[in-house]
Amino acid sequence: MRRSILALLVIGSFLHSAIADSPQSGETAPLDGFSSQHARSEREWENKFRALPSADKQREYMQLLAARPHHVGSAYDKQNAEWILGKFKEWGLDAHIETFKVLFPTPKRRVLELIAPTHYVAKLEEPAIAEDPTSNQRDEQLPTYNAYSRDGDVTGPLVYVNYGLREDYERLDRLGVSVKGAIVIARYGRSWRGMKPKIAAEHGAIGCIIYSDPRDDGYFGGDVFPKGSMRPDQGVQRGSVLDFASNYPGDPLTPDRGDPNAPKITVRDAPSISKIPTLPISYGDAQPLLAALTGPMAPEEWRGALPIPYHVGPGASKVRLVVESNWDIKDVNDVIARIPGSSEADEWVVRGNHHDGWVNGAEDPISAQVALLEEARAFGELLKQGWKPKRTIIYCAWDGEEPMLLGSTAWAETHGRELQEHAAAYINTDGNGRGYLMLEGSHSLEHFMNDVARTIEDPESKLSVFERERLADIVQAKSDDERKELRQRPDLRMMALGSGTDFTTFIDHLGVASLNLGYGGEDEGGIYHSIYDDFYWYTHFSDTNFVYGVALSQTVGTAVIRMADADVLPYEFTDFSDTMQKYAKDLQKLLQEKQDEAREREQELKEGAFRATLDPRKATVAPPAEDVPPHLNFAPLENALDTLNKSAERYKVAFNRAEAAGFTGSDSQLTAINQKLIQSERCLTDPAGLPGRPWYKHLIYAPGIYSGYAPKTMPGIREGIELRHWQEADAQIGRVAHVLESEAALLDSASTDLESLSK
Amino acid sequence: MRRSILALLVIGSFLHSAIADSPQSGETAPLDGFSSQHARSEREWENKFRALPSADKQREYMQLLAARPHHVGSAYDKQNAEWILGKFKEWGLDAHIETFKVLFPTPKRRVLELIAPTHYVAKLEEPAIAEDPTSNQRDEQLPTYNAYSRDGDVTGPLVYVNYGLREDYERLDRLGVSVKGAIVIARYGRSWRGMKPKIAAEHGAIGCIIYSDPRDDGYFGGDVFPKGSMRPDQGVQRGSVLDFASNYPGDPLTPDRGDPNAPKITVRDAPSISKIPTLPISYGDAQPLLAALTGPMAPEEWRGALPIPYHVGPGASKVRLVVESNWDIKDVNDVIARIPGSSEADEWVVRGNHHDGWVNGAEDPISAQVALLEEARAFGELLKQGWKPKRTIIYCAWDGEEPMLLGSTAWAETHGRELQEHAAAYINTDGNGRGYLMLEGSHSLEHFMNDVARTIEDPESKLSVFERERLADIVQAKSDDERKELRQRPDLRMMALGSGTDFTTFIDHLGVASLNLGYGGEDEGGIYHSIYDDFYWYTHFSDTNFVYGVALSQTVGTAVIRMADADVLPYEFTDFSDTMQKYAKDLQKLLQEKQDEAREREQELKEGAFRATLDPRKATVAPPAEDVPPHLNFAPLENALDTLNKSAERYKVAFNRAEAAGFTGSDSQLTAINQKLIQSERCLTDPAGLPGRPWYKHLIYAPGIYSGYAPKTMPGIREGIELRHWQEADAQIGRVAHVLESEAALLDSASTDLESLSK
Repeated sequence: MRRSILALLVIGSFLHSAIADSPQSGETAPLDGFSSQHARSEREWENKFRALPSADKQREYMQLLAARPHHVGSAYDKQNAEWILGKFKEWGLDAHIETFKVLFPTPKRRVLELIAPTHYVAKLEEPAIAEDPTSNQRDEQLPTYNAYSRDGDVTGPLVYVNYGLREDYERLDRLGVSVKGAIVIARYGRSWRGMKPKIAAEHGAIGCIIYSDPRDDGYFGGDVFPKGSMRPDQGVQRGSVLDFASNYPGDPLTPDRGDPNAPKITVRDAPSISKIPTLPISYGDAQPLLAALTGPMAPEEWRGALPIPYHVGPGASKVRLVVESNWDIKDVNDVIARIPGSSEADEWVVRGNHHDGWVNGAEDPISAQVALLEEARAFGELLKQGWKPKRTIIYCAWDGEEPMLLGSTAWAETHGRELQEHAAAYINTDGNGRGYLMLEGSHSLEHFMNDVARTIEDPESKLSVFERERLADIVQAKSDDERKELRQRPDLRMMALGSGTDFTTFIDHLGVASLNLGYGGEDEGGIYHSIYDDFYWYTHFSDTNFVYGVALSQTVGTAVIRMADADVLPYEFTDFSDTMQKYAKDLQKLLQEKQDEAREREQELKEGAFRATLDPRKATVAPPAEDVPPHLNFAPLENALDTLNKSAERYKVAFNRAEAAGFTGSDSQLTAINQKLIQSERCLTDPAGLPGRPWYKHLIYAPGIYSGYAPKTMPGIREGIELRHWQEADAQIGRVAHVLESEAALLDSASTDLESLSK
Repeated sequence: MRRSILALLVIGSFLHSAIADSPQSGETAPLDGFSSQHARSEREWENKFRALPSADKQREYMQLLAARPHHVGSAYDKQNAEWILGKFKEWGLDAHIETFKVLFPTPKRRVLELIAPTHYVAKLEEPAIAEDPTSNQRDEQLPTYNAYSRDGDVTGPLVYVNYGLREDYERLDRLGVSVKGAIVIARYGRSWRGMKPKIAAEHGAIGCIIYSDPRDDGYFGGDVFPKGSMRPDQGVQRGSVLDFASNYPGDPLTPDRGDPNAPKITVRDAPSISKIPTLPISYGDAQPLLAALTGPMAPEEWRGALPIPYHVGPGASKVRLVVESNWDIKDVNDVIARIPGSSEADEWVVRGNHHDGWVNGAEDPISAQVALLEEARAFGELLKQGWKPKRTIIYCAWDGEEPMLLGSTAWAETHGRELQEHAAAYINTDGNGRGYLMLEGSHSLEHFMNDVARTIEDPESKLSVFERERLADIVQAKSDDERKELRQRPDLRMMALGSGTDFTTFIDHLGVASLNLGYGGEDEGGIYHSIYDDFYWYTHFSDTNFVYGVALSQTVGTAVIRMADADVLPYEFTDFSDTMQKYAKDLQKLLQEKQDEAREREQELKEGAFRATLDPRKATVAPPAEDVPPHLNFAPLENALDTLNKSAERYKVAFNRAEAAGFTGSDSQLTAINQKLIQSERCLTDPAGLPGRPWYKHLIYAPGIYSGYAPKTMPGIREGIELRHWQEADAQIGRVAHVLESEAALLDSASTDLESLSK
């Protein structure tokens, strides 16, 4: 019954859109990277695979894994690792635990008081909720804190800094307000939390409070927990403030982790530990602090949903903040399972999701860990049925992701050389929800992942998840151009990778082509990094029947098996080349906008426009004059892009011809081609790394120095422009051009190999 | 000292901008409409005039006029009228009171209770505030209510409808929520309040509650009164809900007021009285009601600043609303003062501001009534010094503006024939504040008012108010095109007139060229139509030292004297023609956008995009298919605009040549030209009026049938397109073309006259 409704829908949508698509399961359609004969058997195995993941089992796993707090170093974290290990083994995978010793601070002392003009002592505590059976495990819960906040006991006036972005401080300058010697209160959002104390400290602040405004994360979004899913007034977002983006993720005390015997540095010397004491609080605790502020009104877009006038401060407000941690070394336990490859065992497909949480962590990370487990179980089943993957598959359940990717970074650096030699792709997940497939990753995998998405059925609409996402994008598109692209470009665009989860070391440091996947958009939020992220919440408000958990297993598992079994690795480079051209255009536009803005500001200063419009009853200040940015030489990049474009087109033709001919070559010929392709992402790295942060080797993708999780594309050039380092930006253009030329050369070489196959 | 700083600023700004300007008081600059000899003496009189208005006197007047509640029919309203009359006479003006009998309902019974799922009885009362000495005059205050709400006692489920606009109900349809049989709660803003019950009733609602959300009018904007200027939690906006826009303003019981002896109709038959009972409430009273709603979450942009999740409803909510009025006939007392013209006594310049308030009404309307009084006093002084205006000047202090322009409509209709024959212009104000000169009016006066604005010094920046406004517009401009126009177009654009104050009958019904002026933008709000709009509030939070009150006297008085003294009335028609072209382009763009939207919606429905993106856990509904709007024949309008453009250019040349030649003609020749010019705005009217609302005769400007105060330009065409009445829109194009051709013909005739002067 369901089947025929689906068929009807498929015909309907096909009539109306040339590129509309349905879950592909036809036995005859070609499959990129497979000869037609192998495609047939591959489809059979994939269909068998996709029938295996079970919603009930995911529910069982979650109930068990999220039953108690399982942060790094806790007894239950260890117990979970061992349980996962047991499961991997039970399913027939070759599994073991790798343990690393890392710095993981936990709260020793936390005090926050308003001492003037009135007195208020912040509660700093999330109350248990009667309906929610795991919310009362007080003894095992980590108190609310920001891991890797520096110790300190500071007192000063309070200033509200909105999201605490660099532009927020420029705005404060215009309001005539300085944060020198002050404690800032910033709201969560718009940047990764660790940027807030970092930027505050750069502006002279002595302490940083981060709170969840109900506008962004509370009743503004809906009913609060337990009536609804949203953050209740004493709910707090824990989280790390380690400055990984300017330094490195992973244990802050071992900068040189390539060497397992490298000596640790001291906490005092660790460059990535926050410069000022930092503490997260609830909006219940924030309201009395914000209500005590006077001074200028905050700009309209800074005002949140608390029932108060948002002033910037400081007025007579005075606040004391005390943060002290136990700076202990703890074990992280990564669970690693292996399915050995048959003919191409030296080519690896790596798949991971962390298992540690801040507290009970049902949504983050268990909702996707249970999907990973069902993939592993299903692969165990296939092995029993005789499936033999061509390549080696490695399943990883990471520990210590929350503090700052401790487990994945330690493992990936320890195995760095092997990974650079063998890893064809790393596929990450980190939590799941209801709704749409969200694609992030290396653009050489964009076409591949679009094909996978065409294969997966959305459990609600019964369309392919590709088609549902495409239609949603059309509905939400903001311009005709966007809609036109969505209707004409065969593949959906994939977002670039920033950071914030375990793909970071793989893509940014090692140059392993990576993906980060998950469903969301119809799920609800409100419990991120709080004690309420637990089984009760998840099964009442998120993917309550685990159908998207199953879809995630099917999606990631399909990507893994297809990548593991392909005759020739199904990278595709015209999407990549198209994306690189887009990024280059974005940069030129960015520069142009900065030039226009600076010219306009210059003219307005000359016209006296700011002086004329100052309100004498307000202490506003005209913006400073800024030099007009110089023109930069984009020619090397544009030339490299032309070369890349040609090489990508040539590769596509060669690949398609070779595939149509059945990839008729010797095993060693195919191995040689695959070995080259594995290096294609490595071509985009440079051993010298990015300006000022040599750990980051990838010249196309990186987390932003001042954004954190959010990606910066062609980051050397982009951040040079954003931070007005013109010479640096100019120099980085050449470096990016160079890696794109290397990529083109590699593709040409692979094309030659493919062309010789069919001869 | 102040003088030389000013000179410096002027030089500075002149160097940087070719059209930057300073207060013009040079004795030699030409003055539009004056021979060079007359320009010299005019400048002298204007300079004398502008030195006279006094901030201290304005303060005294306000303290007296706002000392007690002075709504229509109150003892103090009458007393104020008599006091104003006494002042006019004291200053040597020929003054009298004209009294009209009108329907003015006052509250008899008001009940609002939430009866399910919980119980709450709305307070419906604004508390006295200790610091504010006039806030405790309970016995004389009108209770909080919406005048001309229909009587009723209704009980039903409650539904939140955002601002209660037509598009808000379309959105409710998409959420699967109907208001049939429900009581709606709408927030104030985005439309004139009377549209909220009107549109609600059209959708089947049985009652309407209007509240002030703190997002728009409360703590979101700043500290609340008395700490700051903003609306406190029990503050309520009173106001009329008479549906003037689809019918007529003024007494709802005398539709045919051209005839003073016309019989009154009954309240039951009056078409402009609201269709459903309506009551305004505070956000303090609104919060328990809104918090009781369940059902879908309100769309994000609907959510205000109350600390609750905004649901649309209805869920189990049930509300009872009782509204009953005393439907009494009351007197309105217009105070009319006259300064007879010398040579052109049959040409009138009319200037008005109302004197009645909802309660103490310091800001609205007394802040501008006191400016009007200082103009009158200053003209009395000039008369004593020998000034003889060429034209007759009529000063009007209107009564009954708040209920719905009762006094000005009665007077203007009673004197309609004379006004159509004699009135050169009507200049209105209605409240004042700190900041920037806001220009609204007939575009034949755009250039004239720009010249006046170039003459007035801003009390804060010491630039001309023209230049300060221009620079502020540049700073706030949203596009390069806007900025370019602001830097290149000699005159600032003037807003079109909608409604909401006493110019309405003059411009919309009689076709008298009108202006509406005031300062604002740096002043603060929060007390509109509440008991807190009083002397204490105004002198603490608005134009506390009355310097903008003086600037308003100078601005309006300069416009009055210049218009009254000119040899040839200083209308200018190239700005008018330019504006008409802009409006025509706006209409073509509007139609194009509607076509594009309908085509896009059609395509998305065909693609299944809405079906694909419905969240099965929500009751959302796909939008209905809509026909793609047809193309309309804009050619008649475009041809008329070409003709108008030529005629306006020709008139400009003729006018300038005649002026340069000193307007050398006989008095009767000049009189004939002026008589023609006076008819120029009348040319834009048509006795048949606008579709469905024949009282509105002007074919270029009108209040919107569904917006109320906000203007609709070329309203017959525009509303035809907006309401999808395609044939009507097409027909209206011809009518607008016709009046613009008449205008062009009049200009050609006046040009011929001017050209013959210099021969």
